Amino acid sequence: MSAGIDLGVRLGIGELMAAYADCIDDDRLEEWPDFFGDPCRYLITDRDSHEAGLKHGVIYCASRGMLVDRVTTLRRVLMFEAHRYRHLVGPTRILTVQGEVAETRTNVIVARIMRDGATGLFATGRYLDRIDVGREPYRFIERLVVLDSQKIDTLLVIPL
Amino acid sequence: MSAGIDLGVRLGIGELMAAYADCIDDDRLEEWPDFFGDPCRYLITDRDSHEAGLKHGVIYCASRGMLVDRVTTLRRVLMFEAHRYRHLVGPTRILTVQGEVAETRTNVIVARIMRDGATGLFATGRYLDRIDVGREPYRFIERLVVLDSQKIDTLLVIPL
Amino acid sequence: MSAGIDLGVRLGIGELMAAYADCIDDDRLEEWPDFFGDPCRYLITDRDSHEAGLKHGVIYCASRGMLVDRVTTLRRVLMFEAHRYRHLVGPTRILTVQGEVAETRTNVIVARIMRDGATGLFATGRYLDRIDVGREPYRFIERLVVLDSQKIDTLLVIPL
Repeated sequence: MSAGIDLGVRLGIGELMAAYADCIDDDRLEEWPDFFGDPCRYLITDRDSHEAGLKHGVIYCASRGMLVDRVTTLRRVLMFEAHRYRHLVGPTRILTVQGEVAETRTNVIVARIMRDGATGLFATGRYLDRIDVGREPYRFIERLVVLDSQKIDTLLVIPL
Repeated sequence: MSAGIDLGVRLGIGELMAAYADCIDDDRLEEWPDFFGDPCRYLITDRDSHEAGLKHGVIYCASRGMLVDRVTTLRRVLMFEAHRYRHLVGPTRILTVQGEVAETRTNVIVARIMRDGATGLFATGRYLDRIDVGREPYRFIERLVVLDSQKIDTLLVIPL
Repeated sequence: MSAGIDLGVRLGIGELMAAYADCIDDDRLEEWPDFFGDPCRYLITDRDSHEAGLKHGVIYCASRGMLVDRVTTLRRVLMFEAHRYRHLVGPTRILTVQGEVAETRTNVIVARIMRDGATGLFATGRYLDRIDVGREPYRFIERLVVLDSQKIDTLLVIPL
């Protein structure tokens, strides 16, 4: 049970999760790196690779500069808005809060909406996060996006 | 951060969101207008129209009477139960509480279940709400349903 | 409104819901019976059957022993991992807390990820629960999984 966790921390983490999803879904990608500390670790991988202990992934960034680069590249590649995401996150489980670092996991389902309106289930998985809750706004020290399917292809240009 | 918001208000808003979804999913549509104040504003639109500042939508109601009319019509059109919805709402972000009015946004995914059992992802989007939290039960002053896809067609008879 | 419910109980119930989903999604099915009291009632049914008052279902267990049997059988039938689930639960509505028993309902969407990576919307519905909140860890006295579609076929081997 995690009932002993301060309510303010709990609410702050919930807000971080929702704000992060909104940032991407609203296509405000230039603000996306601000959700991370520096250095940081952002990784999109699949469950099999994660369970095998592999440290690489489809997308990997180790600093805020790499996150910024990612957005810059993405804006050049996507000449116009090809698609959008809609994140739906489930309730966040706070596993531990040690010092100023919270460790959490959150289920997520992402729908993709193509420019012509076609909507489909794009990805499902889990965020495994380490969050700096020592000061506001809270930031991700580490965000692992562990997808259930390894079938995430080249269409994955927008962060999850 | 919205940590300063009264916990009772926060819980009451959460309950409103869930009760609203249950009302529709349970096909208790006659109770649906009771979730709104009078006058009110209920609008289903798509993201492009919303961002362009357009005030119209696929469904638009400006009073509780219009909401009641909507249900009456719907019951006449749908001679038998053609389909049902299942709403899944994400965590609600409370942007502001000013006086007795809370402004919130909530992601939502709606699945549609046809009479023969076929299930599909029907709609994704966001509720942009203004809620009267001055007395219980809380009611919507304004509920904008901003869908991600503009492909919402004539099949949209049941409110979202 | 359910604002009067103790916050610790509310958080504990939230944790139970998330931990249950994680247990299944992580394929730790041997731990699944531990979420239930003994005797208990676990039932997967569809909405029509539930509304008609039928007490049977696609899966029915009345004791922890039956839950254990279910997992044993399942492990024998599924020689290798055929598929996985990803649960996304919505906010839990706590209807009543009487004595040590909480009555709740929670919307759920389940995605299924096949071994080859293909992902689809598998099931939608609602958990109707009675939970023993008298001691920790909380356990289900009764968990009814009421699915929206009656099209749940023989592929349903993993619990929901």
